[in-house]
Amino acid sequence: MNKVLRVGMVGYGFMGKMHGHAYRSLGFYYDPPPARIELRGIATQSEASWQRAGREDGYFFGTADYRELCARPDVDIIDCCAPNHLHKDVVLCALENEKHVYVDKPLARTLDEAREIAARAKEHPGLVTQVTFQYRFAPAILRAKELIDEGRLGDLYSVRACYLHAGYVDPKRPYSWRLDPEQSGRGGALFDLGSHVIDLTRFLAGEFAAVHHTAKTFITERPTKEDPGKTKPVNVDDISILTCRMANGAIGTVESSRLATGVQDELRFEAHGSQGAIRFNLMQPNYLEFYDNTAPGGSYGGERGFTAIESVHRYPAPAKWPGPKNTVGWERLHVHAIHNFVKCIVEGAPASPDAADGAKTQAVLEAAVQSQDKNAWVDVPSV
Amino acid sequence: MNKVLRVGMVGYGFMGKMHGHAYRSLGFYYDPPPARIELRGIATQSEASWQRAGREDGYFFGTADYRELCARPDVDIIDCCAPNHLHKDVVLCALENEKHVYVDKPLARTLDEAREIAARAKEHPGLVTQVTFQYRFAPAILRAKELIDEGRLGDLYSVRACYLHAGYVDPKRPYSWRLDPEQSGRGGALFDLGSHVIDLTRFLAGEFAAVHHTAKTFITERPTKEDPGKTKPVNVDDISILTCRMANGAIGTVESSRLATGVQDELRFEAHGSQGAIRFNLMQPNYLEFYDNTAPGGSYGGERGFTAIESVHRYPAPAKWPGPKNTVGWERLHVHAIHNFVKCIVEGAPASPDAADGAKTQAVLEAAVQSQDKNAWVDVPSV
Amino acid sequence: MNKVLRVGMVGYGFMGKMHGHAYRSLGFYYDPPPARIELRGIATQSEASWQRAGREDGYFFGTADYRELCARPDVDIIDCCAPNHLHKDVVLCALENEKHVYVDKPLARTLDEAREIAARAKEHPGLVTQVTFQYRFAPAILRAKELIDEGRLGDLYSVRACYLHAGYVDPKRPYSWRLDPEQSGRGGALFDLGSHVIDLTRFLAGEFAAVHHTAKTFITERPTKEDPGKTKPVNVDDISILTCRMANGAIGTVESSRLATGVQDELRFEAHGSQGAIRFNLMQPNYLEFYDNTAPGGSYGGERGFTAIESVHRYPAPAKWPGPKNTVGWERLHVHAIHNFVKCIVEGAPASPDAADGAKTQAVLEAAVQSQDKNAWVDVPSV
Amino acid sequence: MNKVLRVGMVGYGFMGKMHGHAYRSLGFYYDPPPARIELRGIATQSEASWQRAGREDGYFFGTADYRELCARPDVDIIDCCAPNHLHKDVVLCALENEKHVYVDKPLARTLDEAREIAARAKEHPGLVTQVTFQYRFAPAILRAKELIDEGRLGDLYSVRACYLHAGYVDPKRPYSWRLDPEQSGRGGALFDLGSHVIDLTRFLAGEFAAVHHTAKTFITERPTKEDPGKTKPVNVDDISILTCRMANGAIGTVESSRLATGVQDELRFEAHGSQGAIRFNLMQPNYLEFYDNTAPGGSYGGERGFTAIESVHRYPAPAKWPGPKNTVGWERLHVHAIHNFVKCIVEGAPASPDAADGAKTQAVLEAAVQSQDKNAWVDVPSV
Repeated sequence: MNKVLRVGMVGYGFMGKMHGHAYRSLGFYYDPPPARIELRGIATQSEASWQRAGREDGYFFGTADYRELCARPDVDIIDCCAPNHLHKDVVLCALENEKHVYVDKPLARTLDEAREIAARAKEHPGLVTQVTFQYRFAPAILRAKELIDEGRLGDLYSVRACYLHAGYVDPKRPYSWRLDPEQSGRGGALFDLGSHVIDLTRFLAGEFAAVHHTAKTFITERPTKEDPGKTKPVNVDDISILTCRMANGAIGTVESSRLATGVQDELRFEAHGSQGAIRFNLMQPNYLEFYDNTAPGGSYGGERGFTAIESVHRYPAPAKWPGPKNTVGWERLHVHAIHNFVKCIVEGAPASPDAADGAKTQAVLEAAVQSQDKNAWVDVPSV
Repeated sequence: MNKVLRVGMVGYGFMGKMHGHAYRSLGFYYDPPPARIELRGIATQSEASWQRAGREDGYFFGTADYRELCARPDVDIIDCCAPNHLHKDVVLCALENEKHVYVDKPLARTLDEAREIAARAKEHPGLVTQVTFQYRFAPAILRAKELIDEGRLGDLYSVRACYLHAGYVDPKRPYSWRLDPEQSGRGGALFDLGSHVIDLTRFLAGEFAAVHHTAKTFITERPTKEDPGKTKPVNVDDISILTCRMANGAIGTVESSRLATGVQDELRFEAHGSQGAIRFNLMQPNYLEFYDNTAPGGSYGGERGFTAIESVHRYPAPAKWPGPKNTVGWERLHVHAIHNFVKCIVEGAPASPDAADGAKTQAVLEAAVQSQDKNAWVDVPSV
Repeated sequence: MNKVLRVGMVGYGFMGKMHGHAYRSLGFYYDPPPARIELRGIATQSEASWQRAGREDGYFFGTADYRELCARPDVDIIDCCAPNHLHKDVVLCALENEKHVYVDKPLARTLDEAREIAARAKEHPGLVTQVTFQYRFAPAILRAKELIDEGRLGDLYSVRACYLHAGYVDPKRPYSWRLDPEQSGRGGALFDLGSHVIDLTRFLAGEFAAVHHTAKTFITERPTKEDPGKTKPVNVDDISILTCRMANGAIGTVESSRLATGVQDELRFEAHGSQGAIRFNLMQPNYLEFYDNTAPGGSYGGERGFTAIESVHRYPAPAKWPGPKNTVGWERLHVHAIHNFVKCIVEGAPASPDAADGAKTQAVLEAAVQSQDKNAWVDVPSV
Repeated sequence: MNKVLRVGMVGYGFMGKMHGHAYRSLGFYYDPPPARIELRGIATQSEASWQRAGREDGYFFGTADYRELCARPDVDIIDCCAPNHLHKDVVLCALENEKHVYVDKPLARTLDEAREIAARAKEHPGLVTQVTFQYRFAPAILRAKELIDEGRLGDLYSVRACYLHAGYVDPKRPYSWRLDPEQSGRGGALFDLGSHVIDLTRFLAGEFAAVHHTAKTFITERPTKEDPGKTKPVNVDDISILTCRMANGAIGTVESSRLATGVQDELRFEAHGSQGAIRFNLMQPNYLEFYDNTAPGGSYGGERGFTAIESVHRYPAPAKWPGPKNTVGWERLHVHAIHNFVKCIVEGAPASPDAADGAKTQAVLEAAVQSQDKNAWVDVPSV
């Protein structure tokens, strides 16, 4: 852990702070950490914001211009937590300046943008790019991936994935960039939550072949932040339902909702195959439920049933946290995602999920948007 | 309870026995029962079978001809537990003979058949017809219906309903009439399980406006019962996924699977609205989960959360079973469904779900079949 | 199933009706049933009551005198659902008249009474006696017993058992025989619920060596049924806590409460051993949770976790109900308990739990009562 | 947040690292944090260890002598993560040097030691002492405390608390100071886990009046770390069962086990009162289950049931983490416990749980040890 990696952060909202905390926590969770991290500089819109980032998180300097940050020789990593419409420019600028890139999801607003990012990333094989699909790093998901790769589910029949929360149930929640197609892309729940659950489905169940998309905006206007008496129309979906045909023959649904009243943060994944099944719910993150259809059955001696595999501690060494007794919190997933990113940099290895993964997920989003326009099944385009 | 009602049963398979047991248990669960029941006669294919029904369940006589049973003056009720392709003939014959009718689900093989049954039933307003959608009578569902009718969910946003089991995961399970479109209709899981969950969704969330259907047969041939060395092709779906637009504006999914490895009998229902949400799972039948979005929230004094409303005993009087301590078993739902039917006969009241309900559910099944043929959204036809 | 067994029922309260229903349902759940059952006669206090039993359940005759019932040559089985203080007299009278006996729990009011019953039962080896500890027949418990007998838990370390409900939380619930030590014995929750959970613990974890008992009456007087304006003092416990040392070296707790606010009917059992652990809760009766400590562990490839073994259908043949899809209801346990009793009669085999079992459980109750009097550990006396 | 507080850490094992991480994370979870924290110095046994602490956690200096650390003028806080037998000396030394104290649980080895610590702490009212009972700061527990303080449970009838894990099931786990009565005190699970759950019970259900203790050592010798071929005898309990009488009249059990096979880290708390009940399990930390016995009941319109109150985000402002969507992890509890400590220092307010709390919990431990020696109920001594 002699290597030092210096981070330049773009954006200091919720996710920028989360990523900063994760970088600073690497040494607590990993022994040794793959590298020593310095939070070097930050690009935000206002000087007040970067002053605060320096004071609170220890960034050495700030700027209003991400290009300046990307050009700094004392920065090794650009972490892009800007709104979606800036992803392409920031990431390309970072790559041009030979920086490793950690970029929030979804990779871009459109498949064209995502393809361009992925193509450029491919031209820089020495640089690591990783997309913030942190749920891949949930210990129960890591265990699910192992089981699936070992063939324990057999032929996959069906997938049922959801990402639900209640964040937009209150009609007074004001308009933001996440509701503006220009800034966030043509999906609401689809792009925000669906990108996560599509990536997770790709990770566990392979590529999507075709999708059929149904979506609806229920709360069609929201007050502006500036003047709660005025409203702006909402043109992105509140609820998104994808029916999908997977490349391996399975069929299934991928639903996203920001109007799931009563739900805190439920990322659910359920898959049934000829030999077994798995279930996961982010609100009970300590366990992966696995059913082994090859276990002894029958009314005497049967042992079939879903096993709540203890997954709290399922990070490969040198992770020392969580131990078998330390239940999982959401921030921890970011720590482990960023650990993977930093480790790949140090080892000169490609990261996963990389820009190509981001673009493939974007291709599903794009197909969904087209399906909704055409009211028909759409094949997922290649990347 | 002076009234005596005499039952003529058509079929003595799994459901025929279940219904017989439910009739005989009415007096145990209800105090007083609405009528005294006599299991009078039975129509089955073989004499051995009706001899056995007499010995075991107390039927006084048997016949191979359902017409003979329907024509008997000493029979008041025809209970039709024959395969789907016989429903229309049996029910019409019963109605012609002025018998009350209790008929297994789905009402028929096709919408045309279902419409004909519903039309004839309507011509006999003095006769009660009821379809075996027993899940309407689960205590948690009765409570859900009350809450929804009181407006406790507000505007409905989404519905997520599934009926899953693993009954067909074993590829050696032999071919049966349930896999034959001629006998069961053009859906497999869709007709068998989907009819239940569509009816339940109609009961709780109102009528379907349009559906988009995706279905697949994974195990495309199965051994015959007669000769396990021979196989027959399977032409009905193993897994069915409906995306739906409800008349009230909600969108959602209704899934049915007979290949849900590891699942015993999961009928799940979940609905989110502007004011609240509900969740139910048949494998935890003692509770209805209800979220009241109007309860006090916030980080001090908040009381929001899903309440597992104790539902074991939620049958209106004079039901004495289950009491608050007697957990729910599946047979009990049949008892309560049949109680409703018998009570309506005694009171001269129409039953619900009636033949029109059966036809409306059939209309959704028909739209699903057409959607799959056309690969497009199909409006649910009126009945 | 040519054999016919004729039942004489003593008592027609809640349990008398439950047992009657269970006898009448045998043929529905078992194929073939072990015998054909006739509900022959009933002994209750009033003619109105036995008239009703005849009308509703089909008993052929009634009497106010259990001795007359016991003496009838056309009765094979005496089922004793009278209050605890009558158990000894009824059972001894039945045995003298050479009747098989099914008797509600606890076996008696005192250990002396229980010993006498057990001794007399032993003198009639040709007669079957069984005590109503129906939880032994829950499918998940049957499976637990198998696993323990196979040594899957290894050396047993601890037992944590509870039987909780909220039946007496309402201080207006009137005084009844269950609160009268003369009629019910010197324990309240201890005798009523504790007898069940002690029997279950004995069944699964072996005999008790010594107990330490703590109990308390919180609601110290209750209105009388006759005049709600008057009250009677309550002299039996509302909550009972047993600490126990088992003969096999394990230690643990057995708690009973009729003041468990919010609880419907929670019989919980949890045991940890050197090789594994089990958990059960009657309100989620479809599963037995089992942990196999010999399964592969560790952060890669580990499969350890509690398996929710599907237990719905775990009755040995010829039980046809429940099938793997028919969730468990409480009445069903009575059916299966009574099936065991009837089968033992037909086969001429001793039943379990028999009178000796009832007496052994009574010995634990007695030790608990003494422990509370002496405020000290008390060895469980032999029977 | 101008104030700077400088921490001197004693010990750099598991808990020392956890506390260091929590101090460094304050600014991430609180906006603004109550003070700026500097991890100033560390006292550990070896130079290698303090060198590492400096490198990894940023401590400026190290020493083998905690007295030197306590005497430093540039240290404001002494955080004692040394084994139990050193607590008294470290804490007294810190207080003599006018340092605020954060000390791991249990407060000491014996009640005499704990009393001395509490007495000295009382002599320094300007210094804040807090004991590491971090579970008080779990959001669901904070909510439980509010509900209880509002009288929502009514008169408390019973308490059922457990702290279970499987950490010592493997008989090859080597001997350590936690198994040595000289270093850890006369309880094993009792002191290690019981101290937590006793404190939590005191926090929620008030003081203990008397206890009866049953405990057992099942694995009576363990290999030494130095030579796995040699073993040392284990003289502290593996499993501890307290029966307790609370000052408010409730009765209950408090169990601790390090032999709970299959259990990760289950701190369970359950209380039933005349008006309501609560349930909590640390492995499902996102919810507090609350039952309101005053809600409408009955079979029509009833709303009674356990509500899983969403508790993820129940920290009072200025906590910004967790938000309603960020599930709880174990480390976070330490962050919030330490936040409370730092805030009290900054505000000049006494902390809770303080040394007196630590001593009161110690009094329960002492009574438990005596109860086991005497095999009798022992009143909890005053402090």
